[in-house]
Amino acid sequence: MLHLQSETDARWFQQVDSHLDEILIDHAHCEKKAAGTAMNLMFAYVENLDLCREMTEIVNEELEHFHMVIALLDKRGIRFRRLKPSSYGRRLNDLVRKLEPQRAVDRLLVAGLIEARSCERFRQLAEHVDDAELAEFYASLFESEARHHATYVRLAMAYASEAEVMQRLDELAALEAEIIATGDPVARMHS
Amino acid sequence: MLHLQSETDARWFQQVDSHLDEILIDHAHCEKKAAGTAMNLMFAYVENLDLCREMTEIVNEELEHFHMVIALLDKRGIRFRRLKPSSYGRRLNDLVRKLEPQRAVDRLLVAGLIEARSCERFRQLAEHVDDAELAEFYASLFESEARHHATYVRLAMAYASEAEVMQRLDELAALEAEIIATGDPVARMHS
Repeated sequence: MLHLQSETDARWFQQVDSHLDEILIDHAHCEKKAAGTAMNLMFAYVENLDLCREMTEIVNEELEHFHMVIALLDKRGIRFRRLKPSSYGRRLNDLVRKLEPQRAVDRLLVAGLIEARSCERFRQLAEHVDDAELAEFYASLFESEARHHATYVRLAMAYASEAEVMQRLDELAALEAEIIATGDPVARMHS
Repeated sequence: MLHLQSETDARWFQQVDSHLDEILIDHAHCEKKAAGTAMNLMFAYVENLDLCREMTEIVNEELEHFHMVIALLDKRGIRFRRLKPSSYGRRLNDLVRKLEPQRAVDRLLVAGLIEARSCERFRQLAEHVDDAELAEFYASLFESEARHHATYVRLAMAYASEAEVMQRLDELAALEAEIIATGDPVARMHS
Protein backbone atom coordinates (compact mmCIF):
# COMPACT_ATOMS: atom_id res chain seq x y z
CA MET A 1 0.00 0.00 0.00
CA LEU A 2 2.88 2.37 0.76
CA HIS A 3 4.89 1.30 -2.30
CA LEU A 4 8.13 1.27 -0.32
CA GLN A 5 10.85 -1.19 -1.33
CA SER A 6 12.56 -1.55 2.04
CA GLU A 7 11.91 -1.64 5.76
CA THR A 8 13.73 0.53 8.27
CA ASP A 9 16.69 -1.39 9.70
CA ALA A 10 18.42 -1.67 13.08
CA ARG A 11 20.92 1.12 12.33
CA TRP A 12 18.18 3.76 12.52
CA PHE A 13 16.68 2.42 15.74
CA GLN A 14 20.13 2.77 17.33
CA GLN A 15 20.13 6.42 16.30
CA VAL A 16 16.63 6.82 17.77
CA ASP A 17 17.62 5.20 21.06
CA SER A 18 20.70 7.35 21.53
CA HIS A 19 19.30 10.67 20.22
CA LEU A 20 15.56 10.67 20.87
CA ASP A 21 15.49 14.40 21.60
CA GLU A 22 16.95 15.25 18.20
CA ILE A 23 14.54 12.85 16.49
CA LEU A 24 11.64 14.65 18.19
CA ILE A 25 12.90 18.11 17.22
CA ASP A 26 13.49 16.97 13.65
CA HIS A 27 10.01 15.48 13.60
CA ALA A 28 8.56 18.96 14.29
CA HIS A 29 10.62 20.36 11.40
CA CYS A 30 9.42 17.52 9.14
CA GLU A 31 5.76 18.29 9.83
CA LYS A 32 6.37 21.94 9.02
CA LYS A 33 8.25 21.01 5.84
CA ALA A 34 5.41 18.69 4.78
CA ALA A 35 3.02 21.64 5.12
CA GLY A 36 5.43 23.79 3.08
CA THR A 37 5.67 21.15 0.33
CA ALA A 38 1.87 20.95 0.04
CA MET A 39 1.67 24.75 -0.12
CA ASN A 40 4.36 24.88 -2.83
CA LEU A 41 2.52 22.25 -4.89
CA MET A 42 -0.63 24.33 -4.60
CA PHE A 43 1.24 27.39 -5.89
CA ALA A 44 2.78 25.43 -8.75
CA TYR A 45 -0.42 23.73 -9.94
CA VAL A 46 -3.08 26.21 -8.87
CA GLU A 47 -5.35 25.54 -11.86
CA ASN A 48 -5.86 21.98 -10.60
CA LEU A 49 -8.70 22.48 -8.13
CA ASP A 50 -8.74 18.87 -7.00
CA LEU A 51 -5.06 19.28 -6.07
CA CYS A 52 -5.74 22.64 -4.36
CA ARG A 53 -8.43 21.10 -2.20
CA GLU A 54 -6.27 18.16 -1.19
CA MET A 55 -3.20 20.34 -0.55
CA THR A 56 -5.27 22.61 1.71
CA GLU A 57 -6.29 19.58 3.79
CA ILE A 58 -2.71 18.41 3.98
CA VAL A 59 -1.37 21.87 4.92
CA ASN A 60 -3.90 22.06 7.76
CA GLU A 61 -3.19 18.54 9.03
CA GLU A 62 0.58 18.90 8.90
CA LEU A 63 0.48 22.21 10.75
CA GLU A 64 -1.73 20.59 13.37
CA HIS A 65 0.84 17.80 13.73
CA PHE A 66 3.62 20.38 13.95
CA HIS A 67 1.90 21.95 16.94
CA MET A 68 1.31 18.53 18.49
CA VAL A 69 5.04 17.78 18.33
CA ILE A 70 5.87 21.25 19.69
CA ALA A 71 3.52 20.63 22.63
CA LEU A 72 5.18 17.27 23.24
CA LEU A 73 8.65 18.88 23.23
CA ASP A 74 7.42 21.54 25.61
CA LYS A 75 5.97 18.96 27.99
CA ARG A 76 9.31 17.15 28.02
CA GLY A 77 11.37 20.30 28.54
CA ILE A 78 13.10 19.91 25.16
CA ARG A 79 13.85 23.27 23.59
CA PHE A 80 12.69 23.45 19.97
CA ARG A 81 15.53 24.73 17.82
CA ARG A 82 16.88 24.80 14.29
CA LEU A 83 18.51 21.57 13.19
CA LYS A 84 20.54 20.75 10.10
CA PRO A 85 18.18 18.54 8.08
CA SER A 86 19.15 15.08 6.88
CA SER A 87 20.11 14.80 3.22
CA TYR A 88 17.06 12.60 2.48
CA GLY A 89 14.71 15.32 1.20
CA ARG A 90 17.34 17.02 -0.94
CA ARG A 91 18.47 13.73 -2.47
CA LEU A 92 14.90 12.75 -3.31
CA ASN A 93 14.13 16.17 -4.76
CA ASP A 94 17.23 15.89 -6.96
CA LEU A 95 15.44 13.02 -8.74
CA VAL A 96 12.60 15.26 -9.92
CA ARG A 97 12.59 15.66 -13.71
CA LYS A 98 12.83 19.24 -14.94
CA LEU A 99 10.15 19.43 -17.65
CA GLU A 100 6.39 19.45 -17.19
CA PRO A 101 4.26 17.38 -16.95
CA GLN A 102 6.92 14.88 -15.76
CA ARG A 103 7.98 17.40 -13.14
CA ALA A 104 4.48 17.44 -11.62
CA VAL A 105 4.38 13.63 -11.54
CA ASP A 106 7.76 13.45 -9.81
CA ARG A 107 7.09 16.22 -7.28
CA LEU A 108 3.86 14.52 -6.25
CA LEU A 109 5.43 11.06 -6.10
CA VAL A 110 8.44 12.26 -4.10
CA ALA A 111 6.08 13.97 -1.64
CA GLY A 112 4.10 10.71 -1.53
CA LEU A 113 7.20 8.61 -0.86
CA ILE A 114 8.27 10.87 2.00
CA GLU A 115 4.82 10.41 3.53
CA ALA A 116 5.13 6.66 3.01
CA ARG A 117 8.51 6.49 4.73
CA SER A 118 7.24 8.62 7.62
CA CYS A 119 4.27 6.30 7.93
CA GLU A 120 6.48 3.21 7.95
CA ARG A 121 8.76 4.73 10.60
CA PHE A 122 5.91 5.96 12.81
CA ARG A 123 4.38 2.50 12.75
CA GLN A 124 7.71 0.93 13.69
CA LEU A 125 8.40 3.58 16.33
CA ALA A 126 5.00 2.99 17.94
CA GLU A 127 6.17 -0.57 18.62
CA HIS A 128 9.80 0.25 19.32
CA VAL A 129 9.69 2.99 21.96
CA ASP A 130 9.13 2.07 25.60
CA ASP A 131 7.53 5.41 26.40
CA ALA A 132 3.74 4.80 26.31
CA GLU A 133 2.81 8.42 25.57
CA LEU A 134 5.23 8.55 22.66
CA ALA A 135 4.12 5.15 21.34
CA GLU A 136 0.52 6.34 21.31
CA PHE A 137 1.50 9.59 19.62
CA TYR A 138 3.30 7.78 16.78
CA ALA A 139 0.42 5.35 16.40
CA SER A 140 -1.98 8.28 16.06
CA LEU A 141 0.02 9.74 13.16
CA PHE A 142 0.61 6.92 10.75
CA GLU A 143 -2.94 6.68 9.44
CA SER A 144 -2.83 10.25 8.11
CA GLU A 145 0.59 9.71 6.53
CA ALA A 146 -0.73 6.65 4.69
CA ARG A 147 -3.72 8.68 3.51
CA HIS A 148 -1.47 11.50 2.28
CA HIS A 149 0.66 8.99 0.40
CA ALA A 150 -2.42 7.65 -1.42
CA THR A 151 -3.58 11.21 -2.18
CA TYR A 152 -0.25 12.20 -3.76
CA VAL A 153 -0.15 9.07 -5.93
CA ARG A 154 -3.74 9.65 -7.06
CA LEU A 155 -3.05 13.33 -7.88
CA ALA A 156 -0.03 12.38 -10.01
CA MET A 157 -2.47 10.63 -12.37
CA ALA A 158 -3.71 14.04 -13.54
CA TYR A 159 -0.29 14.45 -15.23
CA ALA A 160 0.38 10.97 -16.64
CA SER A 161 -1.48 7.70 -17.23
CA GLU A 162 -1.96 5.36 -14.31
CA ALA A 163 0.54 2.91 -15.85
CA GLU A 164 3.17 5.63 -16.26
CA VAL A 165 2.62 6.88 -12.72
CA MET A 166 2.94 3.40 -11.25
CA GLN A 167 6.08 2.66 -13.26
CA ARG A 168 7.70 5.93 -12.16
CA LEU A 169 6.62 5.30 -8.56
CA ASP A 170 8.39 1.96 -8.77
CA GLU A 171 11.59 3.61 -10.07
CA LEU A 172 11.50 6.36 -7.45
CA ALA A 173 10.73 3.90 -4.65
CA ALA A 174 13.82 1.86 -5.62
CA LEU A 175 15.95 5.02 -5.42
CA GLU A 176 14.28 6.04 -2.15
CA ALA A 177 15.25 2.66 -0.67
CA GLU A 178 18.88 3.31 -1.67
CA ILE A 179 18.83 6.80 -0.17
CA ILE A 180 17.30 5.69 3.13
CA ALA A 181 19.77 2.76 3.31
CA THR A 182 22.68 5.21 2.99
CA GLY A 183 21.26 7.20 5.88
CA ASP A 184 23.00 10.08 7.64
CA PRO A 185 25.52 10.28 10.48
CA VAL A 186 23.15 12.62 12.37
CA ALA A 187 19.97 11.23 13.95
CA ARG A 188 16.93 12.45 12.06
CA MET A 189 13.42 11.21 11.16
CA HIS A 190 14.77 10.20 7.73
CA SER A 191 18.42 9.43 8.56
CA MET B 1 -6.63 51.12 13.49
CA LEU B 2 -5.34 49.97 10.10
CA HIS B 3 -2.47 52.49 10.07
CA LEU B 4 -3.06 53.30 6.40
CA GLN B 5 -2.25 56.80 5.19
CA SER B 6 -4.67 56.96 2.28
CA GLU B 7 -8.09 55.85 1.12
CA THR B 8 -8.71 54.03 -2.12
CA ASP B 9 -9.70 56.54 -4.82
CA ALA B 10 -12.09 56.62 -7.77
CA ARG B 11 -9.48 55.35 -10.26
CA TRP B 12 -9.52 51.89 -8.69
CA PHE B 13 -13.31 51.65 -8.59
CA GLN B 14 -13.35 52.34 -12.34
CA GLN B 15 -11.00 49.35 -12.78
CA VAL B 16 -13.30 47.25 -10.59
CA ASP B 17 -16.40 48.23 -12.55
CA SER B 18 -14.86 47.47 -15.92
CA HIS B 19 -12.92 44.29 -14.95
CA LEU B 20 -14.77 42.66 -12.07
CA ASP B 21 -13.91 39.13 -13.30
CA GLU B 22 -10.18 39.84 -13.17
CA ILE B 23 -10.51 41.40 -9.73
CA LEU B 24 -12.23 38.24 -8.51
CA ILE B 25 -9.61 35.94 -10.02
CA ASP B 26 -6.82 38.09 -8.57
CA HIS B 27 -8.58 38.01 -5.21
CA ALA B 28 -8.26 34.20 -5.17
CA HIS B 29 -4.55 34.51 -5.94
CA CYS B 30 -4.16 37.10 -3.16
CA GLU B 31 -5.70 34.79 -0.56
CA LYS B 32 -3.35 32.02 -1.64
CA LYS B 33 -0.37 34.38 -1.52
CA ALA B 34 -1.37 35.56 1.96
CA ALA B 35 -1.30 31.91 3.09
CA GLY B 36 2.11 31.51 1.45
CA THR B 37 3.48 34.61 3.17
CA ALA B 38 2.35 33.35 6.59
CA MET B 39 3.93 29.96 5.87
CA ASN B 40 7.22 31.61 4.81
CA LEU B 41 7.29 33.71 7.99
CA MET B 42 6.79 30.55 10.00
CA PHE B 43 9.74 28.93 8.23
CA ALA B 44 11.94 31.99 8.74
CA TYR B 45 11.17 32.50 12.46
CA VAL B 46 10.33 28.99 13.60
CA GLU B 47 11.81 29.43 17.08
CA ASN B 48 9.14 32.04 17.82
CA LEU B 49 6.27 29.85 18.96
CA ASP B 50 3.84 32.72 19.38
CA LEU B 51 4.50 33.59 15.73
CA CYS B 52 4.14 29.93 14.67
CA ARG B 53 0.76 29.67 16.34
CA GLU B 54 -0.54 32.88 14.78
CA MET B 55 0.86 32.00 11.33
CA THR B 56 -0.88 28.62 11.48
CA GLU B 57 -4.19 30.37 12.15
CA ILE B 58 -3.60 32.77 9.29
CA VAL B 59 -2.58 30.01 6.86
CA ASN B 60 -5.79 28.15 7.68
CA GLU B 61 -8.01 31.20 7.35
CA GLU B 62 -6.45 32.42 4.11
CA LEU B 63 -6.73 28.99 2.51
CA GLU B 64 -10.38 28.88 3.59
CA HIS B 65 -10.90 32.28 1.93
CA PHE B 66 -9.11 31.04 -1.18
CA HIS B 67 -11.62 28.22 -1.50
CA MET B 68 -14.51 30.62 -0.87
CA VAL B 69 -13.38 32.81 -3.76
CA ILE B 70 -12.86 29.74 -5.97
CA ALA B 71 -16.42 28.61 -5.18
CA LEU B 72 -17.71 32.08 -6.02
CA LEU B 73 -15.87 32.05 -9.36
CA ASP B 74 -17.25 28.62 -10.11
CA LYS B 75 -20.82 29.72 -9.32
CA ARG B 76 -20.41 32.64 -11.71
CA GLY B 77 -18.90 30.56 -14.51
CA ILE B 78 -15.58 32.44 -14.31
CA ARG B 79 -12.63 30.19 -15.08
CA PHE B 80 -9.89 30.45 -12.45
CA ARG B 81 -6.59 31.01 -14.20
CA ARG B 82 -3.08 32.36 -13.72
CA LEU B 83 -2.88 36.15 -13.79
CA LYS B 84 0.11 38.48 -13.89
CA PRO B 85 0.15 39.98 -10.39
CA SER B 86 0.12 43.72 -9.77
CA SER B 87 3.46 45.28 -8.82
CA TYR B 88 2.15 46.18 -5.35
CA GLY B 89 3.53 43.16 -3.44
CA ARG B 90 6.91 43.26 -5.12
CA ARG B 91 7.30 46.99 -4.52
CA LEU B 92 6.40 46.64 -0.87
CA ASN B 93 8.73 43.68 -0.40
CA ASP B 94 11.56 45.73 -1.96
CA LEU B 95 11.30 47.99 1.12
CA VAL B 96 12.23 45.17 3.52
CA ARG B 97 15.61 45.77 5.18
CA LYS B 98 18.16 43.02 4.63
CA LEU B 99 19.61 42.45 8.11
CA GLU B 100 17.95 40.82 11.11
CA PRO B 101 16.19 41.74 13.32
CA GLN B 102 15.08 44.70 11.13
CA ARG B 103 14.23 42.25 8.40
CA ALA B 104 11.75 40.44 10.66
CA VAL B 105 10.12 43.74 11.66
CA ASP B 106 9.74 44.80 8.03
CA ARG B 107 8.47 41.46 6.74
CA LEU B 108 5.81 41.39 9.44
CA LEU B 109 4.83 45.03 8.90
CA VAL B 110 4.66 44.67 5.12
CA ALA B 111 2.44 41.60 5.54
CA GLY B 112 0.37 43.66 8.00
CA LEU B 113 0.02 46.59 5.58
CA ILE B 114 -1.13 44.29 2.78
CA GLU B 115 -3.80 42.93 5.13
CA ALA B 116 -4.75 46.51 6.07
CA ARG B 117 -5.12 47.58 2.43
CA SER B 118 -7.16 44.45 1.64
CA CYS B 119 -9.37 45.24 4.61
CA GLU B 120 -9.88 48.84 3.50
CA ARG B 121 -10.73 47.74 -0.05
CA PHE B 122 -13.10 44.97 1.04
CA ARG B 123 -14.96 47.43 3.24
CA GLN B 124 -15.25 49.91 0.38
CA LEU B 125 -16.19 47.17 -2.11
CA ALA B 126 -18.95 45.95 0.19
CA GLU B 127 -20.56 49.36 -0.22
CA HIS B 128 -19.59 49.92 -3.83
CA VAL B 129 -20.76 46.80 -5.65
CA ASP B 130 -24.42 46.49 -6.64
CA ASP B 131 -24.34 42.70 -6.49
CA ALA B 132 -25.79 41.73 -3.08
CA GLU B 133 -24.03 38.35 -2.85
CA LEU B 134 -20.69 39.94 -3.61
CA ALA B 135 -21.28 42.83 -1.18
CA GLU B 136 -22.04 40.34 1.59
CA PHE B 137 -18.96 38.31 0.72
CA TYR B 138 -16.66 41.32 0.95
CA ALA B 139 -18.30 42.42 4.19
CA SER B 140 -17.66 38.95 5.64
CA LEU B 141 -13.92 39.20 4.91
CA PHE B 142 -12.79 42.53 6.25
CA GLU B 143 -12.99 41.66 9.93
CA SER B 144 -10.41 38.88 9.56
CA GLU B 145 -8.10 41.12 7.51
CA ALA B 146 -8.19 43.77 10.27
CA ARG B 147 -7.41 41.08 12.84
CA HIS B 148 -4.49 39.78 10.78
CA HIS B 149 -3.16 43.32 10.47
CA ALA B 150 -3.20 43.73 14.27
CA THR B 151 -1.52 40.32 14.71
CA TYR B 152 1.35 41.18 12.36
CA VAL B 153 1.98 44.53 14.07
CA ARG B 154 1.95 42.86 17.49
CA LEU B 155 4.33 40.10 16.35
CA ALA B 156 6.82 42.70 15.02
CA MET B 157 7.27 43.85 18.63
CA ALA B 158 9.21 40.66 19.37
CA TYR B 159 11.98 42.06 17.13
CA ALA B 160 12.02 45.77 18.10
CA SER B 161 10.58 48.04 20.78
CA GLU B 162 6.98 49.19 20.42
CA ALA B 163 8.17 52.74 19.64
CA GLU B 164 10.52 51.49 16.90
CA VAL B 165 7.82 49.28 15.40
CA MET B 166 5.27 52.10 15.33
CA GLN B 167 7.76 54.51 13.77
CA ARG B 168 8.71 52.00 11.09
CA LEU B 169 5.04 51.21 10.49
CA ASP B 170 4.48 54.92 9.92
CA GLU B 171 7.34 55.08 7.39
CA LEU B 172 6.20 51.95 5.55
CA ALA B 173 2.57 53.11 5.54
CA ALA B 174 3.64 56.38 3.88
CA LEU B 175 5.47 54.40 1.18
CA GLU B 176 2.52 52.02 0.83
CA ALA B 177 0.24 55.00 0.18
CA GLU B 178 2.60 56.14 -2.63
CA ILE B 179 2.71 52.66 -4.14
CA ILE B 180 -1.06 52.19 -4.09
CA ALA B 181 -1.55 55.73 -5.52
CA THR B 182 0.69 54.81 -8.48
CA GLY B 183 -1.44 51.75 -9.11
CA ASP B 184 -1.20 49.48 -12.14
CA PRO B 185 -2.67 49.59 -15.65
CA VAL B 186 -4.15 46.11 -15.10
CA ALA B 187 -7.15 45.66 -12.76
CA ARG B 188 -6.10 43.83 -9.61
CA MET B 189 -7.02 43.76 -5.90
CA HIS B 190 -4.06 46.05 -5.22
CA SER B 191 -3.81 47.99 -8.50
